Amino acid sequence: MIVVIKPQTTKEEIMKLKEKLESPLCSVQIIEGVSQTILGIVGDTSTIDASVIQQNKCVEKILRVQESYKRANRAFHPEDTVIKVGDAQIGGDKFCIMAGPCSVESESQIVEIAKSVKASGATILRGGAFKPRTSPYAFQGLGMEGLDLLNIAKKETGLPIITEVMTTKYVEAVAENADIIQIGARNMQNFDLLKEVGKTRKPVLLKRGLSATIEELLMSAEYIMSEGNEQVILCERGIRTFENFTRNTLDLSAIPAIKKLSHLPVVVDPSHAAGLNWMVEPLSKAAVAVGADGLIIEVHNDPANALCDGKQSIRPEEFESLVKSLKGIAEINGKRI
Amino acid sequence: MIVVIKPQTTKEEIMKLKEKLESPLCSVQIIEGVSQTILGIVGDTSTIDASVIQQNKCVEKILRVQESYKRANRAFHPEDTVIKVGDAQIGGDKFCIMAGPCSVESESQIVEIAKSVKASGATILRGGAFKPRTSPYAFQGLGMEGLDLLNIAKKETGLPIITEVMTTKYVEAVAENADIIQIGARNMQNFDLLKEVGKTRKPVLLKRGLSATIEELLMSAEYIMSEGNEQVILCERGIRTFENFTRNTLDLSAIPAIKKLSHLPVVVDPSHAAGLNWMVEPLSKAAVAVGADGLIIEVHNDPANALCDGKQSIRPEEFESLVKSLKGIAEINGKRI
Amino acid sequence: MIVVIKPQTTKEEIMKLKEKLESPLCSVQIIEGVSQTILGIVGDTSTIDASVIQQNKCVEKILRVQESYKRANRAFHPEDTVIKVGDAQIGGDKFCIMAGPCSVESESQIVEIAKSVKASGATILRGGAFKPRTSPYAFQGLGMEGLDLLNIAKKETGLPIITEVMTTKYVEAVAENADIIQIGARNMQNFDLLKEVGKTRKPVLLKRGLSATIEELLMSAEYIMSEGNEQVILCERGIRTFENFTRNTLDLSAIPAIKKLSHLPVVVDPSHAAGLNWMVEPLSKAAVAVGADGLIIEVHNDPANALCDGKQSIRPEEFESLVKSLKGIAEINGKRI
Amino acid sequence: MIVVIKPQTTKEEIMKLKEKLESPLCSVQIIEGVSQTILGIVGDTSTIDASVIQQNKCVEKILRVQESYKRANRAFHPEDTVIKVGDAQIGGDKFCIMAGPCSVESESQIVEIAKSVKASGATILRGGAFKPRTSPYAFQGLGMEGLDLLNIAKKETGLPIITEVMTTKYVEAVAENADIIQIGARNMQNFDLLKEVGKTRKPVLLKRGLSATIEELLMSAEYIMSEGNEQVILCERGIRTFENFTRNTLDLSAIPAIKKLSHLPVVVDPSHAAGLNWMVEPLSKAAVAVGADGLIIEVHNDPANALCDGKQSIRPEEFESLVKSLKGIAEINGKRI
Repeated sequence: MIVVIKPQTTKEEIMKLKEKLESPLCSVQIIEGVSQTILGIVGDTSTIDASVIQQNKCVEKILRVQESYKRANRAFHPEDTVIKVGDAQIGGDKFCIMAGPCSVESESQIVEIAKSVKASGATILRGGAFKPRTSPYAFQGLGMEGLDLLNIAKKETGLPIITEVMTTKYVEAVAENADIIQIGARNMQNFDLLKEVGKTRKPVLLKRGLSATIEELLMSAEYIMSEGNEQVILCERGIRTFENFTRNTLDLSAIPAIKKLSHLPVVVDPSHAAGLNWMVEPLSKAAVAVGADGLIIEVHNDPANALCDGKQSIRPEEFESLVKSLKGIAEINGKRI
Repeated sequence: MIVVIKPQTTKEEIMKLKEKLESPLCSVQIIEGVSQTILGIVGDTSTIDASVIQQNKCVEKILRVQESYKRANRAFHPEDTVIKVGDAQIGGDKFCIMAGPCSVESESQIVEIAKSVKASGATILRGGAFKPRTSPYAFQGLGMEGLDLLNIAKKETGLPIITEVMTTKYVEAVAENADIIQIGARNMQNFDLLKEVGKTRKPVLLKRGLSATIEELLMSAEYIMSEGNEQVILCERGIRTFENFTRNTLDLSAIPAIKKLSHLPVVVDPSHAAGLNWMVEPLSKAAVAVGADGLIIEVHNDPANALCDGKQSIRPEEFESLVKSLKGIAEINGKRI
Repeated sequence: MIVVIKPQTTKEEIMKLKEKLESPLCSVQIIEGVSQTILGIVGDTSTIDASVIQQNKCVEKILRVQESYKRANRAFHPEDTVIKVGDAQIGGDKFCIMAGPCSVESESQIVEIAKSVKASGATILRGGAFKPRTSPYAFQGLGMEGLDLLNIAKKETGLPIITEVMTTKYVEAVAENADIIQIGARNMQNFDLLKEVGKTRKPVLLKRGLSATIEELLMSAEYIMSEGNEQVILCERGIRTFENFTRNTLDLSAIPAIKKLSHLPVVVDPSHAAGLNWMVEPLSKAAVAVGADGLIIEVHNDPANALCDGKQSIRPEEFESLVKSLKGIAEINGKRI
Repeated sequence: MIVVIKPQTTKEEIMKLKEKLESPLCSVQIIEGVSQTILGIVGDTSTIDASVIQQNKCVEKILRVQESYKRANRAFHPEDTVIKVGDAQIGGDKFCIMAGPCSVESESQIVEIAKSVKASGATILRGGAFKPRTSPYAFQGLGMEGLDLLNIAKKETGLPIITEVMTTKYVEAVAENADIIQIGARNMQNFDLLKEVGKTRKPVLLKRGLSATIEELLMSAEYIMSEGNEQVILCERGIRTFENFTRNTLDLSAIPAIKKLSHLPVVVDPSHAAGLNWMVEPLSKAAVAVGADGLIIEVHNDPANALCDGKQSIRPEEFESLVKSLKGIAEINGKRI
């Protein structure tokens, strides 16, 4: 339920109203926009009598939110959410590029790639320490050591870090060592993990599951937000279809859909979607053009010998030329890279 | 099988070689590129002894084409195919916009829309005379009368016409009255229809079936081309997936995929893909950015009262602003609108 | 719209009511069940005033049919439709097995297989004369000669024939030479073809398209029925999904769904669904158990050298053992083979 | 890699060979079948020289396993795995029926249902204590209290319990309180959870993910087995497709596929697949007929007021009649209920 506050209402009056509305069954959140303040009420609102609230002199109107996602709903938060991490910004008038290897392999590897992608225009460094692999016999990532290496690269370059966490056991460690916590596609409905990262105060990048609907993605964001962490970045990374020329089918229509339904920023992962490095450039351009807030791209200095996903990684020099090609399109869409 | 001819070989020598290779089992096609001439051999090539041909002094090298599509294969025709229709051009350095109503409803409707989309930058007029409808009780199009109305609009504006044919019975009539023949998604594997339009000498726009793979789309193009009609335009219009926020899922990765596999031009239909008029703009931008050769867009002067697909049609004024927003992106990709 | 007639109403009264209801916009059909007679009204029923009809003394109640399919709707025809072809019966208390090769190759092949499958329990002979093939260079069937060979096999065995028609051009020829006309999955929405077979008086087996919903399948049946041909047999033959161990995913839940929504009989094609001959037996058993009215199975006397689909064909001796294994399950479901 | 041992080889000789083959890189497992003993080698087998092993006099032949799943592979374990839990048996010549409510709601509810399903023929009681729900605001299950209530029902009826675990945090508690641990579809690739239940010695029922391929399901089983827990039961519960008449599309062809690729038992969940209680019976019959080893069915004494999934639950009296209808089909397939 949303209570739209009349302009010129004082903060005091708003706080009074908030207190009145709060109950053991409902929590109330004040969302201050540039031109409007609203109160978002989440919980069992069935017992609230809207006509009584309506009589309050500072109330302009009352809206019921039909969708099951409340905090992630644009109705709750009409303005775009903008997330700032160090010098990087996701959402708003900037276009954010996250880049780095699929998995952290060694100090020299991660530091070299970090320096290179920073020089080309990336503002966030990605790198996997814990790797979800289909086979138990495949390389599972360097684990805690990987987190240390990422931090060395951070010190060398100043780039904030994004890395994946796969289990509640490591949420604390990843929250301490990373600037953005990534939830992978396979864990999009690992609800305990979502709640756990919701308790941290680090931004969370939530990848869409392989066969998740847009609504389910927003419901998973709601799990994180319901624990108090409002800094959620959504990520489209391809869905599973019958087409098998590409590994997955990048659903770019999800970007305008999410923008309409939610205020959260959304980025695109063209590397995992197609699984083909030569497709990263055209798909990245399309992602910028369709209105995404950023990209997360796999860059490796030696794709042929990468410990994982070499086939979809681009080389640093390709990344440099890619970023250049995106600038003009971003500007047309009113974004700076 | 492909025979690459050495540079400086005379036309006479090439013709001699062609004759030698031809047989009741194999047809040979000469493809002259800017820098290279090749002979494409289609049919049962198993009896051809490559080592014998290799000895011919004008032969540079011989390649076997693994894919089942031959004439549609880029290996057969390394340079992009460019199709010209009146003043319009599909492929090459121009970006082509086809626009018009889902179905032709009346003279005033089609003429008014034609004038308007021409003024905004469209170079081809679309309009359905024969409509494939899920229900036998729904409006099935004006039929032959629709073709006449399209031609009135053509006379008024000079815009070439594209319209769909649904059955072999009307191929002749449509070929006579239209500049481009459209094969709809539901008929992508209506093989008799494909052969029939392959016998005409009019360009054919072939839409990808709702659950067709990229390879199957190219095989259907091959059906048309195997009858001698090389002017095929492919069209991505969304595939069927579990996601139901949009009517279908626009597969933009199909564009670079097709460009790699084939020399044929490819356009995007964002109207049918999403089924939502407010998504036409972002998806059109993405289509330009990903490297498509054109767009086919539904424009209606009165979407609320359209006889079909009103929900996905944009108004003439929205179309005008859309075309403007595409120009910059097209230029970045080296295309002119 | 459905008008349920009171018991004991005379035929004369019903005919009178029918005449009253008929108009240029609406056609009325009398459906006489064992215990109940109803009038089904198809067309633009928006102008009919239900309250006026209700006052007629022979009217029990009036129902509006929400679904877009009317004649195919169970509401229109509460009792199961049973189709009889020679000695064979599709629907009702019999379980019908259609069997034969993917394509007719020669007289000896089709006659030999026909004799063998008849001896094992098949009551209808299948065999392709016109073959829809993905590649224009693949074997396209024997055409009219194939129809002749099928008729020789019919004469030898007495088995009625089912064969596919792919284009309106051959509908007449196939209708004359076959007992059941098959519409393939790729042509499920070839609406002109549907209308054309709707004008014949031969039963039509309509295969579900690779990505067609159950509702769309019923709408395609409606196309046939709207032309006056009520003898439609539906066929589930696998849908396209991400799983690629099997060629398609057999959707057996479609059988009870169709039975609920429609009165038409429905059969299962396990051969095309899985594309794997060793899966034909378990899937056939499941089809019987789930409530299908029949099976259509590919049987070839020399699968390794079949001109098409050898990989999914079973041998005559396997077919014999298959039919035996189905009898018990059919009996449990109240059906005789 | 598989080493097939000659008949009449002594246990001592086999143990000697096993020791020889073991290394820090490879673990060796002895699989004793009725007629044959084999050694399965898992790990980095690239350094093993097969020709040297071949010379060992007790070695009949050596096979390399191409699939990424080893312990789950039928090549590793040619005979069917049979799992016994109390009086229940999953796999082999018995058909196992697990039944109970979606979620445990109260002592009287679970005890009443347990008694009823036992009387009808169920041999295992299902009931959710921890519930994965799309919305954070939906009922999440009774948690630990639910486990206690399940155990009360177990004491009353003697039925072993199966219940889901969603997070590593509760694996110990669930392993102590349940007889079979369930991993839900959404957690099929929650690899840390798989490893954790792999460390317990309780059978694990692993549900196929909504868009998981059969191969990925087997790889997830491999995760559990690679930790030493060989008692894995696979479960088909519907995959996500474009069809939306049913909630998901039950993929019954997965059953014979899994039986061919793996030795693990496989059960079917018709309740979650269709999401429609009236479809449970036909789909259950089909599951028995296609060769499944069991069913897991939602039964609720008051579906209309169930705290979750009421729409797909059947009533105890419907369950009773269902079990009766399955017996004949099971017998035909050589299974006893």
